[in-house]
Amino acid sequence: MTDSFSFSLRTTDGPARLGQFRTPHGIVETPAFMPVGTQGSVKAMRHEDLEAVGAQIILGNTYHLYLRPGDQLIARRGGLHSFIGWPHPILTDSGGYQVFSLAERRKITEQGAEFRSHLDGSLHLLTPESATDIQGRLGSDIAMVLDECIAYPATHDDAARSMERSVRWAQRCRTRLMEIRDGSAAEIGATNSGQAQFGIVQGGVHPDLRGQSAAATMDIGFEGYAIGGLSVGEPIDLMYEVVGDTARQLPEHQPRYLMGTGTPQDLVECVARGIDMFDCVLPTRNARNGQLFTSQGRLNIKNARYAEDEGPVDPECRCYTCRTHSRAYLRHLFAAGEMTAGALNTLHNLSFYLDTMRRIRDAISLRTFERFRQEFLRSASRLSLDS
Amino acid sequence: MTDSFSFSLRTTDGPARLGQFRTPHGIVETPAFMPVGTQGSVKAMRHEDLEAVGAQIILGNTYHLYLRPGDQLIARRGGLHSFIGWPHPILTDSGGYQVFSLAERRKITEQGAEFRSHLDGSLHLLTPESATDIQGRLGSDIAMVLDECIAYPATHDDAARSMERSVRWAQRCRTRLMEIRDGSAAEIGATNSGQAQFGIVQGGVHPDLRGQSAAATMDIGFEGYAIGGLSVGEPIDLMYEVVGDTARQLPEHQPRYLMGTGTPQDLVECVARGIDMFDCVLPTRNARNGQLFTSQGRLNIKNARYAEDEGPVDPECRCYTCRTHSRAYLRHLFAAGEMTAGALNTLHNLSFYLDTMRRIRDAISLRTFERFRQEFLRSASRLSLDS
Repeated sequence: MTDSFSFSLRTTDGPARLGQFRTPHGIVETPAFMPVGTQGSVKAMRHEDLEAVGAQIILGNTYHLYLRPGDQLIARRGGLHSFIGWPHPILTDSGGYQVFSLAERRKITEQGAEFRSHLDGSLHLLTPESATDIQGRLGSDIAMVLDECIAYPATHDDAARSMERSVRWAQRCRTRLMEIRDGSAAEIGATNSGQAQFGIVQGGVHPDLRGQSAAATMDIGFEGYAIGGLSVGEPIDLMYEVVGDTARQLPEHQPRYLMGTGTPQDLVECVARGIDMFDCVLPTRNARNGQLFTSQGRLNIKNARYAEDEGPVDPECRCYTCRTHSRAYLRHLFAAGEMTAGALNTLHNLSFYLDTMRRIRDAISLRTFERFRQEFLRSASRLSLDS
Repeated sequence: MTDSFSFSLRTTDGPARLGQFRTPHGIVETPAFMPVGTQGSVKAMRHEDLEAVGAQIILGNTYHLYLRPGDQLIARRGGLHSFIGWPHPILTDSGGYQVFSLAERRKITEQGAEFRSHLDGSLHLLTPESATDIQGRLGSDIAMVLDECIAYPATHDDAARSMERSVRWAQRCRTRLMEIRDGSAAEIGATNSGQAQFGIVQGGVHPDLRGQSAAATMDIGFEGYAIGGLSVGEPIDLMYEVVGDTARQLPEHQPRYLMGTGTPQDLVECVARGIDMFDCVLPTRNARNGQLFTSQGRLNIKNARYAEDEGPVDPECRCYTCRTHSRAYLRHLFAAGEMTAGALNTLHNLSFYLDTMRRIRDAISLRTFERFRQEFLRSASRLSLDS
């Protein structure tokens, strides 16, 4: 364990948890949503925008930053926080998910994943050790272990073999981090001595495998635990079931992170099952495509019905976009291909997500989470404004 | 004349003038630079960004807004200010410049310009009257007359014929505006009863034609006067000469607007020749292409020399971009194709332009403009940081 990272559970309301974790770059209140800053920038946002909407932590993608501008360059510039000018907490993924998505451009062995860059075709090898080293140089506050991601559906046998490999890789990642921490791997040039590391529970939708993975990963011992391999096409109720079953087996006094999820409803439903942390490209990617999340459901701003609609995107929202602009103007900007459309839409969607997290935390604090959850789900499903 | 528009000259320092004009949407200090908001949005900027850098007025392009979303729709939404959510002054051009740029997609007659939309090929007719009506519906604070724009170089004969047509068109625009003002054209649905109208002096680089155009345009009588048909390829010294000669012939107590210019040096040199207002796409367009204006010259952020440069774009600049980010990070964002690169670069370039205007006004106020000009030109040309 590192002294620099700590999690404290403040109160619970059923399985829902209110807490906070401390990192070398500040405190994050949980349940937390982490906007995705793939290349060291949350798309269409300035850092001040993220602060304005209440983001306390962002996620950086190791695969992208490793390829460009390179982890060595970032380390020479003092690490990722310093390079991008974001003084608050950062979590980095391991790069594994992107590499596994490269399909025929990658080959997986016990050693690691060999892949060709999507930028220039150059050949690279990502191993548990190198994924740990790269994240060490990036100097994120929370690093993730390299795990194997498999497609859904997978047979029990395939899911078992893959989960077991992920456990072996997790052990190698932890061993490597310990070498960095104890100074025996000083040559890699890590930039954040207080970096925490989270293990990842795999096992597909198979309860027995999830249980084995959780036990083995906890046995290695990490500062926090993630649930990986979900939101990959399985039915939503099955996902919720796996999340709830797995979360129950994780340590009470450490944070639980559900990777790559999800819709606003998913956030509420998974907090209800004991999750503390989320990340997802949905609010940012959908914003750039014109899909906006509101308290009354989703709307597609390109729809002709908004051409002369003077109302704000969401009458309950207080973000800059909703305070300043009408749906009619936002539709015009989108139709005209103005990049400001992407910025204004992203600002709103992230406001909606971060505001939802605030309301979740308030409700847990007041022990009214179950009522909040019922109302939120009713309201969000009441009206999908556009198909 | 309208009561709602007035210009007051506060002081002069040689030919350089310090003043301000009042519009139905607020006051603008001159010399002023107007960022270009082609489609009702200054590219990559939010309105709050424009306020932050000190923009007091923006320009909208009638051609683009007429085609999309349409001046009728904008009028139904209360006019351009209301539609786009910008409560400060707006100037609109006549649409002529864009139509003349359509080359083989347009045909010019005494009646006006027939053209095909670049969006869908539909056929449209822009006349002095319709250009006035469209701007009336947009409800800008300052409307421009429709003038004929010719290519450089043009023979004396061609320039004379074109200038004379522009004078006839200016008269038709003024007559039409008077009908709108006196209520006899209420059916067009103008949205800003205090809209001013500027005439445009043409005549190419021929001093006699510029003189005739200025006299004839002043004879019609407008709230302000623009110099058009420059920055179209003529040598820079010739442009400065035409600007100085023309400005001298314009009324002392009305604003003078040099259209479509220019570089930071151009702004300083033309203020030195009596100009009060400028617009140009240079700071915004170049920003999106990675070219940044600084107190030490221009730099191209994509240049490899900036890959690990921890300094700000311009050490003398206090904009968000310079306060927050290094050249190294901005280069990374540009190379990675992040749209935030365009936003951060535009924020800086507009800051540099608006800050230059502030320094110009301060210098005139202190009657040290000539010294400021010498220092500015030396400093700006000292070092073109990149070729």
